[in-house]
Amino acid sequence: MSRNLTLLTDFYQLTMMNGYLKSGVANETAVFDLFFRQKGQLTYAISAGLEQAIDYVRNLHFDDADIQYLRDQKVFSEEFLDYLKNFKFTGDIYAVREGEPVFPMEPIVVVKAPLIQAQFIETALLNIINHQTLIATKASRINTVAGDGKVIEFGLRRAQGPDAGIYGSRASIIGGCSSTSNVLSAQMFGIAAKGTHAHSWVLSFPSELDAFRAFAEIYPDSCLLLVDTYDTIKSGVPNAITVFKELREKGHKPMGIRLDSGDLAYLSKKARKMLDEAGFEDAIIFVSNDIDEYLISSLNAQGAKIDRYGIGTKLITSEDMPSLGGVYKLAQIEKNGESIPKIKLSNSIEKITNPGFKTVYRIYDKETKMAVADLIALVGEEIPKPLTLTHETERWKQMVLADYDIKELLVPIFKNGELVYDIPTLQESAEYCKNSLALFEDENKRITNPHIHKVDLSDGLYELKQKLLKSKK
Amino acid sequence: MSRNLTLLTDFYQLTMMNGYLKSGVANETAVFDLFFRQKGQLTYAISAGLEQAIDYVRNLHFDDADIQYLRDQKVFSEEFLDYLKNFKFTGDIYAVREGEPVFPMEPIVVVKAPLIQAQFIETALLNIINHQTLIATKASRINTVAGDGKVIEFGLRRAQGPDAGIYGSRASIIGGCSSTSNVLSAQMFGIAAKGTHAHSWVLSFPSELDAFRAFAEIYPDSCLLLVDTYDTIKSGVPNAITVFKELREKGHKPMGIRLDSGDLAYLSKKARKMLDEAGFEDAIIFVSNDIDEYLISSLNAQGAKIDRYGIGTKLITSEDMPSLGGVYKLAQIEKNGESIPKIKLSNSIEKITNPGFKTVYRIYDKETKMAVADLIALVGEEIPKPLTLTHETERWKQMVLADYDIKELLVPIFKNGELVYDIPTLQESAEYCKNSLALFEDENKRITNPHIHKVDLSDGLYELKQKLLKSKK
Repeated sequence: MSRNLTLLTDFYQLTMMNGYLKSGVANETAVFDLFFRQKGQLTYAISAGLEQAIDYVRNLHFDDADIQYLRDQKVFSEEFLDYLKNFKFTGDIYAVREGEPVFPMEPIVVVKAPLIQAQFIETALLNIINHQTLIATKASRINTVAGDGKVIEFGLRRAQGPDAGIYGSRASIIGGCSSTSNVLSAQMFGIAAKGTHAHSWVLSFPSELDAFRAFAEIYPDSCLLLVDTYDTIKSGVPNAITVFKELREKGHKPMGIRLDSGDLAYLSKKARKMLDEAGFEDAIIFVSNDIDEYLISSLNAQGAKIDRYGIGTKLITSEDMPSLGGVYKLAQIEKNGESIPKIKLSNSIEKITNPGFKTVYRIYDKETKMAVADLIALVGEEIPKPLTLTHETERWKQMVLADYDIKELLVPIFKNGELVYDIPTLQESAEYCKNSLALFEDENKRITNPHIHKVDLSDGLYELKQKLLKSKK
Repeated sequence: MSRNLTLLTDFYQLTMMNGYLKSGVANETAVFDLFFRQKGQLTYAISAGLEQAIDYVRNLHFDDADIQYLRDQKVFSEEFLDYLKNFKFTGDIYAVREGEPVFPMEPIVVVKAPLIQAQFIETALLNIINHQTLIATKASRINTVAGDGKVIEFGLRRAQGPDAGIYGSRASIIGGCSSTSNVLSAQMFGIAAKGTHAHSWVLSFPSELDAFRAFAEIYPDSCLLLVDTYDTIKSGVPNAITVFKELREKGHKPMGIRLDSGDLAYLSKKARKMLDEAGFEDAIIFVSNDIDEYLISSLNAQGAKIDRYGIGTKLITSEDMPSLGGVYKLAQIEKNGESIPKIKLSNSIEKITNPGFKTVYRIYDKETKMAVADLIALVGEEIPKPLTLTHETERWKQMVLADYDIKELLVPIFKNGELVYDIPTLQESAEYCKNSLALFEDENKRITNPHIHKVDLSDGLYELKQKLLKSKK
């Protein structure tokens, strides 16, 4: 499954690289930050995609056909095309772990490398991290409301192409989903694959009862029946109960039913009652029809009797916010051995970037162990005790921490082009996510109007930013 | 770039296939329709993805590792795993051409094949056709408002994974975009690749003027300068004009400027005036910042001076409707040589499927040559002259056509598993789309509240559907 994605980039990266080489600035050391801004109902995001970003960086190479293709564009110098022949990434990359809860404006990937290289990898890094972080985040929101282990990812048919299905499924596991319907993704990443039957199974038999019986005969111990092909309450559930009784007589335990249309609150309560009255208290009710965190929240409030959710379209496309909007901005450049911090100005304060070579700390309450704030700081800056946290623009908002625990969120991934990071398994990243989220208050994770987790600038970074803002460059 | 996507499917397809084999119905001939339902602001869709769907079907094969993986799931019979070893598609597929304008409820792909095969290919077909049709449709809406050749696809960094960038770019060309920033997509599909420089280019030089001069020196004949890094009107445009004058003195013609933030109506008018006053009437103004068809429509109404659009996030994710919602439904099955039409019931009329082996005709006015209606009909049914078109549910809505031209939209793609279709180039499909759309009235293509193109059922299909609805199966 290893494709050469080297040309998965924007054309302007190549015209700029060609230009950097010609202008003699190609090998100045640049620092770029990858981060996202506040958007929509986003309260926190779950970082994901690092493993694929690492694969991408390690496999970078321009093959002969690529170079010929670029030559044919008639805009690149032979010197540049020659340079590409031996192109490899030789810089440093820092990133937050997959499964880490992250917040707007925090660098989640920091690239420190020769300008020409750091520039080149922008587009693919953004593509990979933006996508998987988006889906892991949506999955986390959904799982927070649904409860542990209750959600199966079902979205392949509505995903935006094969990779969106494959890597979206992967990301949804990091965000807390228990399994997937996507067989290729399950095979690639060691996820449990799940699924039973569709309406077409029912329609391809002379009657619903025939279809259920045939299915029960083949899968007596994993018999989950889709009951809404004709009429859920009048036909589907009664036929399922008939078949479940036949299974019970043969010593098998039926798994349950699936509802894929209609009023899920009403139908689940009605079906639960019918199953219970027939003595199938253990049979589960599985639902799957345009579900997201808002609908689950409403179903919970209505006392719906639902044991499992299969979630497709709205998860795999992150329907209400189908892009994270992550960006990759130059923060520093070295000229003749001198580090020059860079800032991108804008009329809107939230679009002004944070300058310099930075890192991110998470601050935990010493007693409760809960996360109380994040701090974006300059690399090498000492974090004092006691620590005064001050809001970036509303400077009167202050919090003093006499004592605290601290964790650096960015960890080294590449050093001088060598991978120095031990890549966790997908299951380890899912576990890491779960444990990390547990250290945030429920109010921070609320799907609407959450209590916003503090993300402040260190004193050193604040002063540097103010200085650059005043000098306007 | 040929990956084995055979396992790109939902697990339940495999459990059903295993079941069909065991129940003795695997080789009954089934007919499945792929279609979408009315959704959101969708007025028409542009069919796309057929070439990749064909590749998928032709390359289907389970390799040994796939079969071992399935065996390890411990739910499949050895008979079934044996069957998979030699699995290939041996059926018929009909589809509308790429670039064809299509409407809700019309079959855009029809699969007639042994049940076990037709069932299997559902998920990947939906994934591929849903995605590319979605993006081609969004691109068509945008290009309809922007005007011919003005839009460049810019979305790779915000696409939902690599494929969403690669194939989304391809689909956007079918929908009318002129070129892309995505180099890999450009290389794969022969699309023109475009792009100049980013903010990081400007920031990596000591000043904006230095950065512009360096760029102009390297690309004197394709010099498009991004003018919003510091202050568009006070710094960016004046510096660009300085550099353009230097280029002019050396006999070069500058290309223009790009605006990537701020009030595009105001800034484009102001910049146009400044460029014109400096004698650069031919320099273009290129804009790129969260653009979609609604914003272009508003910019047009405000008299903005914009020559080209670079459109990213909202195109490549189809932001306001990130899934098409296409479905794949059983329409007929043959049992012992008898064709049994199938219908999926529902409480909502728009969720009831159309039964039988069907095709789709487009009816054109004999004189104006414009499309007046589509007709979903049973295969083999004669379409009479004069033709009375009747609305499916509002039966008093009738239109009588004394004479008309007619085109069958579905064309044969596979016959007995052999490809019988001559796959057009991407450029031919884009041209086909443009020519086909020209035969629809502007009111049909309006982005809000369009005049709805009639899609009626033939008499034969209407009668069959009513009969099945009354017998309730």
